[in-house]
Amino acid sequence: MSHLEEIKPFGRLTPAVQAELVAIVGAEHVLTASNLAADEYARYGRDQTEDLHFSPEVVLRPANADEVSRIMRLCHAHRLPVTPRGAGTGLSGGALPAFGGVVVSTERFNRIIDIDERNLQATVEPGVITQVFQEAVAARGLFYPPDPASRGSCFLGGNLSESSGGPRAVKYGVTKDYVLNMQVVLPSGDIIWTGANTLKNATGYNLTQLMIGSEGTLGIITRIVFRLIPLPTQQLVLLVPFRQEAQAAEAVSEIFRAGMVPSAMEFMEREAIEWSARYLNIPLNLPEDVRAHLLIELDGQDLEALYPEAEKAYAVLEKYDIGEILLADTAAQKEELWKLRRNVGNAVRYMSVYKEEDTVVPRAELPTLLRGVKALGEQYGFRSVCYGHAGDGNLHVNIIRGELSDEQWHHGLEEPIRRLFELCVQLGGTISGEHGIGLVQRPYIGIALPEANLALMRGIKQVFDPQGIMNPGKIF
Amino acid sequence: MSHLEEIKPFGRLTPAVQAELVAIVGAEHVLTASNLAADEYARYGRDQTEDLHFSPEVVLRPANADEVSRIMRLCHAHRLPVTPRGAGTGLSGGALPAFGGVVVSTERFNRIIDIDERNLQATVEPGVITQVFQEAVAARGLFYPPDPASRGSCFLGGNLSESSGGPRAVKYGVTKDYVLNMQVVLPSGDIIWTGANTLKNATGYNLTQLMIGSEGTLGIITRIVFRLIPLPTQQLVLLVPFRQEAQAAEAVSEIFRAGMVPSAMEFMEREAIEWSARYLNIPLNLPEDVRAHLLIELDGQDLEALYPEAEKAYAVLEKYDIGEILLADTAAQKEELWKLRRNVGNAVRYMSVYKEEDTVVPRAELPTLLRGVKALGEQYGFRSVCYGHAGDGNLHVNIIRGELSDEQWHHGLEEPIRRLFELCVQLGGTISGEHGIGLVQRPYIGIALPEANLALMRGIKQVFDPQGIMNPGKIF
Repeated sequence: MSHLEEIKPFGRLTPAVQAELVAIVGAEHVLTASNLAADEYARYGRDQTEDLHFSPEVVLRPANADEVSRIMRLCHAHRLPVTPRGAGTGLSGGALPAFGGVVVSTERFNRIIDIDERNLQATVEPGVITQVFQEAVAARGLFYPPDPASRGSCFLGGNLSESSGGPRAVKYGVTKDYVLNMQVVLPSGDIIWTGANTLKNATGYNLTQLMIGSEGTLGIITRIVFRLIPLPTQQLVLLVPFRQEAQAAEAVSEIFRAGMVPSAMEFMEREAIEWSARYLNIPLNLPEDVRAHLLIELDGQDLEALYPEAEKAYAVLEKYDIGEILLADTAAQKEELWKLRRNVGNAVRYMSVYKEEDTVVPRAELPTLLRGVKALGEQYGFRSVCYGHAGDGNLHVNIIRGELSDEQWHHGLEEPIRRLFELCVQLGGTISGEHGIGLVQRPYIGIALPEANLALMRGIKQVFDPQGIMNPGKIF
Repeated sequence: MSHLEEIKPFGRLTPAVQAELVAIVGAEHVLTASNLAADEYARYGRDQTEDLHFSPEVVLRPANADEVSRIMRLCHAHRLPVTPRGAGTGLSGGALPAFGGVVVSTERFNRIIDIDERNLQATVEPGVITQVFQEAVAARGLFYPPDPASRGSCFLGGNLSESSGGPRAVKYGVTKDYVLNMQVVLPSGDIIWTGANTLKNATGYNLTQLMIGSEGTLGIITRIVFRLIPLPTQQLVLLVPFRQEAQAAEAVSEIFRAGMVPSAMEFMEREAIEWSARYLNIPLNLPEDVRAHLLIELDGQDLEALYPEAEKAYAVLEKYDIGEILLADTAAQKEELWKLRRNVGNAVRYMSVYKEEDTVVPRAELPTLLRGVKALGEQYGFRSVCYGHAGDGNLHVNIIRGELSDEQWHHGLEEPIRRLFELCVQLGGTISGEHGIGLVQRPYIGIALPEANLALMRGIKQVFDPQGIMNPGKIF
């Protein structure tokens, strides 16, 4: 990992420091290779990014901000690297302890503290599972739209740290658009609130949005105030088969130009939906000429108003070379279609070793991006399975190991990945839409960000974390 | 101005520097007290904040980012204070050259460079008037929702710098929610783009949102990429008279709890609408018992679907002690109601010397805030006219000079304003929702932000602007 070399040596975990950590969080919440089964301990050195593993010296499970603050003061004094960790579902290696040291797991921060129906706000701890939170607010008629594919297991704190999105971003925005305020423990141990519990705030620099997407490099989130919206109770889901991939991508722009804002517009290559169906054991007989699908969701409070919307969508779609549209309006049908979409990532992971690139471009450039991916694959001899959030121009490119040799897999892909990212930037896009840079995209950050931008970011990092202990080796 | 004292002395504008400025922007764009009529020159030392005036040494009107960059390098080398200026419609003194020096006016940055219908994006220069931009995109069936009351004269760059909002924020968000990317000239003279032209971006720290609301203290915006949405073509406007102010504020929360998201929910005290009607010469016969109004706007693509929404709103509103609701569905009626609302600020300005506080709290705390304002007025002997964006909990409190003595006006209000802001913060709110801190709220920033937050902000400022030349004396 040559790009990590410039980082200065860190302190080591001495028995004395470990005893202090035990005094802070309690012995049962100080996990080490000697008090935890090897496979359980190894879990804290992994996430869902390829097959990477880094071993922490110690894993801590604090219960509250005060304990986190005391941990941070201690690590700051001894210059121990600290890696915050949510559920470990990240796809860029953000939660991996690249320099060993201390992993601070937020797994005990799992309380929904308040759902404030008067203000349409909720206060939660960062270790709450996204889907648990969504269901808790839905039970009160409220909606928390951000919806990453891993929502059944990922934590809200991780969603904030990596600036997660998901399919509903096209209408409702991403995680960052629902965060009003958060409590953060700084590397100094200071506990701050980044903003106010208001929809508008013009009071000083926006520390809230600076923390979001900072991938645990500026502090540890210990509490979050979200805004919520009224729950749309009705949905229609359309599955639209296309005979040409690029047309599926083109149709996305046309639907917006017709004045519609679907709550999801998901793109899946033929292989993506086929692999997912196989993984889920769902029978699926795709006509041979179908090359891609769009999954389109319309939502609102009134089902009768959605059918005319669907008609408008049909009118746009019929101009393309499409097969028969499947309209799902029962809960079971809709759930099955979404299950197919949500499990593409799991299916790819199950079917093959892969590398996933989280490319994003202005939405109308998606056909160009897709053609670029395939051309690179032909030139460099790799297969790819592409799917993602077409409404946002966010395409997940899964490079499949397949028959590639060790040499090709480990060393031959850097150049095409670099060229892929260069294409994204040329098209007005960037190298990560919702997974973050973390560890694995770090070598490519210079493609997206010139030195002047990186210098500002390093300067900001230095302000928050003068010792450089917070999640070292990530982003830049 | 004791709070400005700690700032180190700046360089002065020498004839040699002035000659260099002429070489950069051309003699006709270097304005000084000696080449411009006194009243025109004085205009560059004022905005719409109370009756403040600061005289710049020189006003520059560069034409492009390259000229701005050369100006910044020169000012950086000579440690000259630089104050960026938009249209001068600000309400917190953000554009006032508190330390003299150089004012950089963006008035020549007035081009809409591109409206990209394929991607629902637009690229503009910062000196475009907000309403001009709104109308240009509306002509293509697109919508730029942020809608400050001064939209007929304010510049988009100023909207970004002060994190402007407006009435439609309740449904559509504020200025910051529509900015994808911007070109900024840093104090060093470096020209950067802060982000990418994409709806999702998880690539490094969010410099875009850090710049927004930074009130010209970190750099000068020279180009902006906005996202747009399809234009809602239909609106209904309801004017609802309440016999108790607090009930008007309470009804706001209830409407959301009934599952509606109006595109505006504006609160006006009786005096606010009366003064506006008088200012506009619109006859208005309010029943004597009416104490406040809510102006509610519903919008969408389909007028027929809005009437049932209005019925739902009526059902909620009827539980309160209200008068007869006026439903406006013709263009003329709707325009008249909005004109009344939009001119409250102008009317207050016309009727009396005043101080405006831009308070904001979680929406359901508005009745408490309103009662607090009135109690402070009784205790300290001032009248206030309150109005604002009730859907966002954003209440503009206008303290009226009326019969107050010079002593009371200039020295007697600091304590009640301080207590008003303390109340906002206690209620989970903050001291500015959409006007910024600028110069006039600077003495109060410590109420909203503890020292740990301010230290981070000062550190960030130092990273961008090590010489401290960008808009000194603002925010903190």
